Amino acid sequence: MSKPINVGIIGYGFMGRAHSNAYSKLTQFFDTEHVPVMKAACARNRDTITEFAGRWGWESVETDWRALIERPDIDAIDICVPNHLHRDIAVAAARAGKMVLCEKPLAMDASEGREMCEAVERAGVPNLVWFNYRRVPAIALAHQLVDEGRLGRVFHYRGLYLQDWTISEDLPQGGHTLWRLDVAEAGSGVTGDLLAHSIDTAMWLIGGVDSVTAVTETFIKERELQDEPGKVMPVGIDDACAFLVKFKNGAIGTFESTRYARGRKNFNTFEVNGAKAAMYFNLEEAHKLLYYDHADDGIIRGWHDVLVTDSDHPYMSHWWVPGCVIGYEHTFINALADFLTGLDTGVPSQPDFRCALETQLVCDAVLASARTGQWVRVGEA
Amino acid sequence: MSKPINVGIIGYGFMGRAHSNAYSKLTQFFDTEHVPVMKAACARNRDTITEFAGRWGWESVETDWRALIERPDIDAIDICVPNHLHRDIAVAAARAGKMVLCEKPLAMDASEGREMCEAVERAGVPNLVWFNYRRVPAIALAHQLVDEGRLGRVFHYRGLYLQDWTISEDLPQGGHTLWRLDVAEAGSGVTGDLLAHSIDTAMWLIGGVDSVTAVTETFIKERELQDEPGKVMPVGIDDACAFLVKFKNGAIGTFESTRYARGRKNFNTFEVNGAKAAMYFNLEEAHKLLYYDHADDGIIRGWHDVLVTDSDHPYMSHWWVPGCVIGYEHTFINALADFLTGLDTGVPSQPDFRCALETQLVCDAVLASARTGQWVRVGEA
Amino acid sequence: MSKPINVGIIGYGFMGRAHSNAYSKLTQFFDTEHVPVMKAACARNRDTITEFAGRWGWESVETDWRALIERPDIDAIDICVPNHLHRDIAVAAARAGKMVLCEKPLAMDASEGREMCEAVERAGVPNLVWFNYRRVPAIALAHQLVDEGRLGRVFHYRGLYLQDWTISEDLPQGGHTLWRLDVAEAGSGVTGDLLAHSIDTAMWLIGGVDSVTAVTETFIKERELQDEPGKVMPVGIDDACAFLVKFKNGAIGTFESTRYARGRKNFNTFEVNGAKAAMYFNLEEAHKLLYYDHADDGIIRGWHDVLVTDSDHPYMSHWWVPGCVIGYEHTFINALADFLTGLDTGVPSQPDFRCALETQLVCDAVLASARTGQWVRVGEA
Amino acid sequence: MSKPINVGIIGYGFMGRAHSNAYSKLTQFFDTEHVPVMKAACARNRDTITEFAGRWGWESVETDWRALIERPDIDAIDICVPNHLHRDIAVAAARAGKMVLCEKPLAMDASEGREMCEAVERAGVPNLVWFNYRRVPAIALAHQLVDEGRLGRVFHYRGLYLQDWTISEDLPQGGHTLWRLDVAEAGSGVTGDLLAHSIDTAMWLIGGVDSVTAVTETFIKERELQDEPGKVMPVGIDDACAFLVKFKNGAIGTFESTRYARGRKNFNTFEVNGAKAAMYFNLEEAHKLLYYDHADDGIIRGWHDVLVTDSDHPYMSHWWVPGCVIGYEHTFINALADFLTGLDTGVPSQPDFRCALETQLVCDAVLASARTGQWVRVGEA
Repeated sequence: MSKPINVGIIGYGFMGRAHSNAYSKLTQFFDTEHVPVMKAACARNRDTITEFAGRWGWESVETDWRALIERPDIDAIDICVPNHLHRDIAVAAARAGKMVLCEKPLAMDASEGREMCEAVERAGVPNLVWFNYRRVPAIALAHQLVDEGRLGRVFHYRGLYLQDWTISEDLPQGGHTLWRLDVAEAGSGVTGDLLAHSIDTAMWLIGGVDSVTAVTETFIKERELQDEPGKVMPVGIDDACAFLVKFKNGAIGTFESTRYARGRKNFNTFEVNGAKAAMYFNLEEAHKLLYYDHADDGIIRGWHDVLVTDSDHPYMSHWWVPGCVIGYEHTFINALADFLTGLDTGVPSQPDFRCALETQLVCDAVLASARTGQWVRVGEA
Repeated sequence: MSKPINVGIIGYGFMGRAHSNAYSKLTQFFDTEHVPVMKAACARNRDTITEFAGRWGWESVETDWRALIERPDIDAIDICVPNHLHRDIAVAAARAGKMVLCEKPLAMDASEGREMCEAVERAGVPNLVWFNYRRVPAIALAHQLVDEGRLGRVFHYRGLYLQDWTISEDLPQGGHTLWRLDVAEAGSGVTGDLLAHSIDTAMWLIGGVDSVTAVTETFIKERELQDEPGKVMPVGIDDACAFLVKFKNGAIGTFESTRYARGRKNFNTFEVNGAKAAMYFNLEEAHKLLYYDHADDGIIRGWHDVLVTDSDHPYMSHWWVPGCVIGYEHTFINALADFLTGLDTGVPSQPDFRCALETQLVCDAVLASARTGQWVRVGEA
Repeated sequence: MSKPINVGIIGYGFMGRAHSNAYSKLTQFFDTEHVPVMKAACARNRDTITEFAGRWGWESVETDWRALIERPDIDAIDICVPNHLHRDIAVAAARAGKMVLCEKPLAMDASEGREMCEAVERAGVPNLVWFNYRRVPAIALAHQLVDEGRLGRVFHYRGLYLQDWTISEDLPQGGHTLWRLDVAEAGSGVTGDLLAHSIDTAMWLIGGVDSVTAVTETFIKERELQDEPGKVMPVGIDDACAFLVKFKNGAIGTFESTRYARGRKNFNTFEVNGAKAAMYFNLEEAHKLLYYDHADDGIIRGWHDVLVTDSDHPYMSHWWVPGCVIGYEHTFINALADFLTGLDTGVPSQPDFRCALETQLVCDAVLASARTGQWVRVGEA
Repeated sequence: MSKPINVGIIGYGFMGRAHSNAYSKLTQFFDTEHVPVMKAACARNRDTITEFAGRWGWESVETDWRALIERPDIDAIDICVPNHLHRDIAVAAARAGKMVLCEKPLAMDASEGREMCEAVERAGVPNLVWFNYRRVPAIALAHQLVDEGRLGRVFHYRGLYLQDWTISEDLPQGGHTLWRLDVAEAGSGVTGDLLAHSIDTAMWLIGGVDSVTAVTETFIKERELQDEPGKVMPVGIDDACAFLVKFKNGAIGTFESTRYARGRKNFNTFEVNGAKAAMYFNLEEAHKLLYYDHADDGIIRGWHDVLVTDSDHPYMSHWWVPGCVIGYEHTFINALADFLTGLDTGVPSQPDFRCALETQLVCDAVLASARTGQWVRVGEA
């Protein structure tokens, strides 16, 4: 018998669409015991959210997230709103005994993140942060290869997340589609938006970060407001951020993110070099993992270009046939399947809030280092 | 006001799933006037089709396709069964006044295909063959570039469709999942299954074929039957097929397909070389089009590696954001959107049956040439 | 003690330079017993050949190749002139008891080639045809992998040699730099110039050709003469040629060459698909061999991108250090080293004239098939 | 009339061979007025240097570099010995009025480098540091594109130089072939050996460095001595080094080098992202430059894969024909041609000692930062 989870979603933007798609596709591709029911969608503007709910199949709408949380027919709250709202909603939802699924980054900073962890842990509610890239089959495969001990001692990690969509000086900041450029809503720029992904992946693959030294830059110093044309304001976010890492295991890492890398659209890449093997991934070629195995016979040793679409690759037995790729949105469906499987088995899927707090702590250390120019030790979660 | 089209689907295999997915996602990503309603699914086994209908949201089931066709509440019949059944179903559906959407290849041969064309044309019903790869954004972009006159005189076309899943001698033939290896159900091997795609793409891009010379090969001469373990039968299909083409426009083409190309999973590629520009596509990197423009400044002239995910690329404004790829199944959703848009506007989307008959005629000529060793002229549709 | 071989070279064009470079570099990188001495260079124009000899270190010059051949101080004749002169020079040189090193293709046709074989064999002189691409380390590695039995039964071979330098209608034909476009000097177009390379490589890797069917095309029907501006003449060569092959071992092959493939400069590629492994090579990335091994563990199976620069790769221990590539000209130095090693050991290096005649026979069959439209069986060498 | 430059070379290792090759090939491919004469080769062991001189065509040998410098028939001294000897030889050679060509890095540190600059400048002798990678045609093309103003404001620079040849714990240090692992002879590890290249390229392309913060690591703490088997000593070099850069022009940079990057052989790469265009280079694919031009028409915008072998590309008109690549050693020949052209024209080719000192100053700052954990400002040359 299937166990329905009544979901209430808050937000209808890019992530609202991606999550709605996940809820609507789940049961066609996965056979979990717990299954989502698309109960209610919430946003301030009733017309907008009604149109959204109709398109995606949400059964009802709310215009006040507090009202949504109080509904007894809601089991889980999914937070798809700008970062500055995560904390209040998550804490309230937890207090109301709801499961909480929250978009990344967890919070505006580690202090907020800690509150959120405490709230869900005190309430004992299942919780998840949507670091969807862990669910790219090629990245999940990378994790499996590490787990199998194939890399040996890790010497190096290299993470990049490069985009180029904010180079124009004419791009405004703030507002519904550009809140990521407004520090008041986003908390930070590329650090929270993009590097949080890179850090989450890195720590999942090779473990915790000891300390960092960082530089940030804001290339365009002021921009017009999207909602108030003609009004120009200073830009508070970091347009770019680079940092060096000492991992706890002795490896050295370099990380960089920017929205000013002309030519790079969604260039989320990593390379890990171990004594025995190495791996390289690039989100712009998401269906591939490059793998180098020193144990290969010398004359035919070289990077394996692995097309991660076989049925023995992570997640892929749920999809089409070998050689048929899946896309961006499937990472959310896979993530949801893992969350529900966690409910089925009692072994919570990761990253939960506590796990995501570790990433938040690295982000905080990075931003602190960028301010002071000093190496900063990462705090304990 | 939306205009519902009540669809009845026949078949629940790989294509049955892909089409069902398309019907269920359409309205979330496209705003057509005509919209599909998932009215009925049909297959001989009631339990199987009931489970399938439940999973995908088909409102009812049938176990006899003739009964389905007779239902007055059905507007369109979607044919997802093996090739040897296409003709009878399509002709009957057309006679019953239903729209017909048929999986490729159109038919077992051109003679059947002609009957089907005549049936839908006499009935005046909208009709479509699901050559879904035309709806890969990168291939649609290639077509757009040709339409814009960017290639100049075309000298060469090179089409490959390579796979490697039938190399094992232990693989049986026939049965539910392996009917493509049984000549009685499939009509041919790689020619109808894979080269039909390559030919459809080629003719869409650069026009009709004048004549061909071909070779086919069956590497494994006999295989066990999937449904009757222990019973070994001769293999009647072509495991591999290669042919040379003289196009009507004077270009020369080479085509090859096989399921014995170790290392190639879904290696559906083409290259077109024109006097002014050239293009290369590979389905294993479906989100890319390589484009070479002789007009580029000499010192920076080289193949452009175009990531086809921008909002001004075909179909992509309906999906996520630049840099986020879509997957295999989206080609069916895009194809369905085009079909519905054809109904909205009165300009039928292509390929319809008559257009697909041209591909069938090339396939027939290829198989005839392989038998005789002679160049064979392609018949008129 | 080193054994000097006094070389006389005929011709000073592109190949004259490449061979001269090989003679001058040999002893710096290889330690053969037999070593070349750059004795004399020959061409009709005394000033030109004197300048050439001075630049490259040839000790003397001749203006008549017959005089060169008669010189008692010359041990070996190297033929770097257009194809229509190969036969006469080679036969005369053999009769004079000289070793003969001849540029490819061996001859204008197999009939000439046979005469040449008979001449060198009757004279018992060492002989070589400069199919230099066998000496690309990556291609030599491919051959080694075949020899080691890594491929298993071979199903498919795919050879391309694509260029784009003759697309302009304004390019003249004939003359010193464009004799390859003049059928009277070249014998054929891409078939003898480029496909001869592809065929030599293919037969070296997987064995002999049973039969072929081919198409050729001349896209630009007439061109001005380079040496007589204003005088326009029909173009007699094949601008493009494609053919299908049945190999003696049961494999199927496709080959294509053209100088009208916009975007391709020196795109000499091959792919071999065996039951156990596959290989892909592209001369534009000459330092790489792609290798796919079905025996690899499934989850990390993929094309190995082998950087062929390690000291255990063919030829590379003679050059720099791992990671440092060699270039186009090194293939000639490697070939020369093999020839000299053949003299040292008494085991002649290949391809000698007899071996090259097999390639010539395939070329002849290809051209015959293109004329008749029939499958043509390849003659015996 | 050609103007001979009598060269005396010191050292016969990897660089001794590469330079000797350059001297011997120069006049075959370049027509400079000044031409090198291979006058004398010098090393402590007479037998070794005599064999070397014989192989490469050096007219005479010396066993004491001071004797070589004093020879009146020597015009130029070429320094191919370990780094700790650069200063003394260069200063003595300059004082003796010889031109000085010195392998990179310039010196053990900037203090030595300054002495060397002063010596050559006081003596007024032509001088050069062999940063040969500036002479890779693709890198020279990158420089040309910057000069033409194609990049616009530069936001980001990313330099990597990754190798994997010292991962084994069994590799000894010191001695003739492994002096690069001995801090006493090399001065530093990857910083001076590999990052010096990366920094030289970066500053040539986008200008000077303001400040850096760095981390270094020595993964294997002790190794046996090559020359004293059984004797184990601490490893003093940096196995790996990563640093962040603030460029004077406001761009941000990241650099990393290591010899522990499993899978990377000679992975010297850079990427520059400007407002208008971007470029990417990888020494393992040295004949290519990737170039992204925002001015390209949107639908066909993508990274151009430029095969840098055309006659209008830097240096390539001196070599073979389009599509034919050159190799590692050609960078030295090109560099030598530039140096000689500098003598011909009176405009010294770069980098001279003063220019190379700037790279040394960055290396010093990097190593200082790695020691202190602080951002360090780069000194003035």
